[in-house]
Amino acid sequence: MTGRGQFITFEGTEGVGKSTQLANAAATLKALGVDYTVTREPGGTPMAESIRELLLAPRDEPVNDMTELLLMFAARAQHLHTRILPELEAGRWVLCDRFTDATFAYQGGGRGVPAERIALLENLVQGSFRPDQVILLDAPVETGMTRARHRGELDRFEQEAVAFFERIRRTYLERAAADHGRYHIVDAAQPLEAVSRDVTSLINRLVSRS
Amino acid sequence: MTGRGQFITFEGTEGVGKSTQLANAAATLKALGVDYTVTREPGGTPMAESIRELLLAPRDEPVNDMTELLLMFAARAQHLHTRILPELEAGRWVLCDRFTDATFAYQGGGRGVPAERIALLENLVQGSFRPDQVILLDAPVETGMTRARHRGELDRFEQEAVAFFERIRRTYLERAAADHGRYHIVDAAQPLEAVSRDVTSLINRLVSRS
Repeated sequence: MTGRGQFITFEGTEGVGKSTQLANAAATLKALGVDYTVTREPGGTPMAESIRELLLAPRDEPVNDMTELLLMFAARAQHLHTRILPELEAGRWVLCDRFTDATFAYQGGGRGVPAERIALLENLVQGSFRPDQVILLDAPVETGMTRARHRGELDRFEQEAVAFFERIRRTYLERAAADHGRYHIVDAAQPLEAVSRDVTSLINRLVSRS
Repeated sequence: MTGRGQFITFEGTEGVGKSTQLANAAATLKALGVDYTVTREPGGTPMAESIRELLLAPRDEPVNDMTELLLMFAARAQHLHTRILPELEAGRWVLCDRFTDATFAYQGGGRGVPAERIALLENLVQGSFRPDQVILLDAPVETGMTRARHRGELDRFEQEAVAFFERIRRTYLERAAADHGRYHIVDAAQPLEAVSRDVTSLINRLVSRS
């Protein structure tokens, strides 16, 4: 009945409303009768979620940048091969909270790991597999940080300084600018209703096109 | 007073007596007045030990080969940069239970991951860093398996079939044959006293040479 599903990722810095817009996109697909699943990175399978816990837990031991990068891709390999690819092949759309763009943004732009090293691991783990569409929720860093702080205790990433998130935002925007066909920048500084309207209309367009 | 320490790794399949010979090598270094530390892979730091637990825990979810490989190197990056290199630079010898040779043997020979992929990660994580000396404890697989079984419950690796360990042993022997200068094959099928005598005399030689 259906062909391969679409792989749609949601990206952005802390507090831009990814979870809300993922739920909104899911509701839109449901209303359109499109079969879908919602997942996240790092995580998405029990093994990958265990790796996520290792990555996010605040700890005394400084985590080496390469360790962090390899753990991200270890979780991704597990998620991709045991969940994402089988779902897509079954004709289901996969909505994913962060994917490899986040690695380029956080470990690359944020931590300063050279992009070539990330690209090397991306090719090793994914081959030529890339998201079909990337929805980048963009807002000034301070706006998102204020929202993230209101959610309570901060994880190891959320404890970083504002400059760290400025570099992440810049990397996301640069990647989006380099590939207009796959990236969709949504202004997440708008009132929630306007952000939701933009995402709903984007999902409607993607479905009608598919 | 001293220069850089030597990095000595102990390799071999299950039950060949690595722990016993590591302790023997440590006692030999102590008797010679050489400053040393004993560690293991995967592991060697609290973070890397947490990755080890993830790797060894028996689980229902099949672990993707690439996930396993990346977790091994994630633990290695952490161990290398936060412990091994600082110890060596402080002039201490580092005795390590398994290192990258084990990855080539287990994930490469055992699981069939292409050696080029492992070499790519080896270069990414280690640059040109390699063990100064590798002590390969070699015994027929059945000999070691019988000993390992007597130790009690088997981890995810120990549950594999004999053919898996035969491929691992063969890979170890091929690597040793290709680099006689750094690899020392010790016949671990001999009575314990003979194995210990070989390792003691090897360590004595390495110290007198250093």
